[in-house]
Amino acid sequence: MESASDEMRRVFGREGMQDAGHVRRLIRQGLWTGHTSGLADDHVQGNLVILPQAQADDFLRYCQRNPKPCPLLAVSEPGQPLLPRLGAGIDIRTDVPRYRVWRDGELVDEPSDITALWRDDLVSFVIGCSFSFEQALMEAGLPLRHVEQGRNVAMFRTNVPTEAAGPFSGPLVVTMRPMRASAVIRAVQVTSRFPNVHGAPVHIGDPSLIGITDLSKPDYGDAVDVMPDELPVFWACGVTPQAAIQQARPAFCITHAPGAMLITDLLNSQLASF
Amino acid sequence: MESASDEMRRVFGREGMQDAGHVRRLIRQGLWTGHTSGLADDHVQGNLVILPQAQADDFLRYCQRNPKPCPLLAVSEPGQPLLPRLGAGIDIRTDVPRYRVWRDGELVDEPSDITALWRDDLVSFVIGCSFSFEQALMEAGLPLRHVEQGRNVAMFRTNVPTEAAGPFSGPLVVTMRPMRASAVIRAVQVTSRFPNVHGAPVHIGDPSLIGITDLSKPDYGDAVDVMPDELPVFWACGVTPQAAIQQARPAFCITHAPGAMLITDLLNSQLASF
Repeated sequence: MESASDEMRRVFGREGMQDAGHVRRLIRQGLWTGHTSGLADDHVQGNLVILPQAQADDFLRYCQRNPKPCPLLAVSEPGQPLLPRLGAGIDIRTDVPRYRVWRDGELVDEPSDITALWRDDLVSFVIGCSFSFEQALMEAGLPLRHVEQGRNVAMFRTNVPTEAAGPFSGPLVVTMRPMRASAVIRAVQVTSRFPNVHGAPVHIGDPSLIGITDLSKPDYGDAVDVMPDELPVFWACGVTPQAAIQQARPAFCITHAPGAMLITDLLNSQLASF
Repeated sequence: MESASDEMRRVFGREGMQDAGHVRRLIRQGLWTGHTSGLADDHVQGNLVILPQAQADDFLRYCQRNPKPCPLLAVSEPGQPLLPRLGAGIDIRTDVPRYRVWRDGELVDEPSDITALWRDDLVSFVIGCSFSFEQALMEAGLPLRHVEQGRNVAMFRTNVPTEAAGPFSGPLVVTMRPMRASAVIRAVQVTSRFPNVHGAPVHIGDPSLIGITDLSKPDYGDAVDVMPDELPVFWACGVTPQAAIQQARPAFCITHAPGAMLITDLLNSQLASF
């Protein structure tokens, strides 16, 4: 069986898979419809939410009020499919490997191109994701268990409410990474430099203080063990706005499919605040 | 009974007690021989160690190898009692409220002036203290329990060895401040800005991982409670070099008396690294 990284190398080439523009071109041609973890590692990847303008104003206020789970990298003009601030020639209708189309809160399709669905009133939101700070953590020499074990990061719904805006509300969703105390301290320092991709942790230690009853049963993603000499560390997660959208059940919405993110031309290092 | 702050106001005046130069002048005149906590709050205070040159080279290497517990603010030339980098006209022989004189590791005197003991081979070391970062924590809105309760901070000897240099060695000594997780995260950010005054914490959470068996029994200072929703947070402590000196038992040594620090002209805010 071909591994994901073998397949990436075959499709994009060993050097090409780290070239953001090359990767987007092949995605646009429909040659890659899978996960983007491992592609263009130095570049910022983003969560995508597309809403009609009627809901977009409320959603923009929701993101503004909840910047840790919903750090906005870009918001388009209505009907404008290009996002020049994120990369030359990015067309949001074709440049994400796989989309999810939602009607009245129900998943109705998972296309790899949304050109046929485009409307003059659609507003695109690109929200920072933790891939950027995970790269910074690993470059700082901090091991990440879910990466070592080839699993998805563990995600949990908390009892911490987000601040509502219009129909958008719901619990803060967090990711959890277990670390020894010295790594926790370093991880706070490293991720504090990246406010545009969730920034510093939101909680350290006892999960019950934020309404998580069992670390071995994540609400999304895969469980990882927390060793006796480790603390669980929790960061705000980009699944939070997805949960708010599912709760709001807008008449029409498009998102990226889980793990199939928008690859931008921005470098992760450009997001560092100091 | 007159409180310490009432007495400070009487001796220095309400405004004068925040004026570093004025406070040092009155200390030099022998008018204040007590603690310096609360005096010239905006200014950096320092721990003092004075050693003959024969031991000073080893001690300098000890501080260099252990910068978190021994952050050097200044080192004098041998025999030079002035420290112009720390303040105009500072004379280390007279400007500390109370000294401790050690011979062969034994405390032999606690004078308020060491002019009569001065020698041409004495080297002064001024080491940053946590007063500076505690002020920054309180300005960031983070409550400190020992300050609220009017106690000395709790200090513990750990099982973490410092890196030895010549006769100087011994365990890392830490201070402990209990905080809720959100405050822990903010405290890491705030204290990371102050590497010259111990910087970021060295440990968070389970005390047994650094050899502390009972948080209610500090080795120095006063115990404070850790609430169920709090984590104990540990910072490297300036008592570490004092413990190394007591272990080394140099033939001659002078330090400040506990709590009676050197007040410098440096502002705490000047130490912030970003």
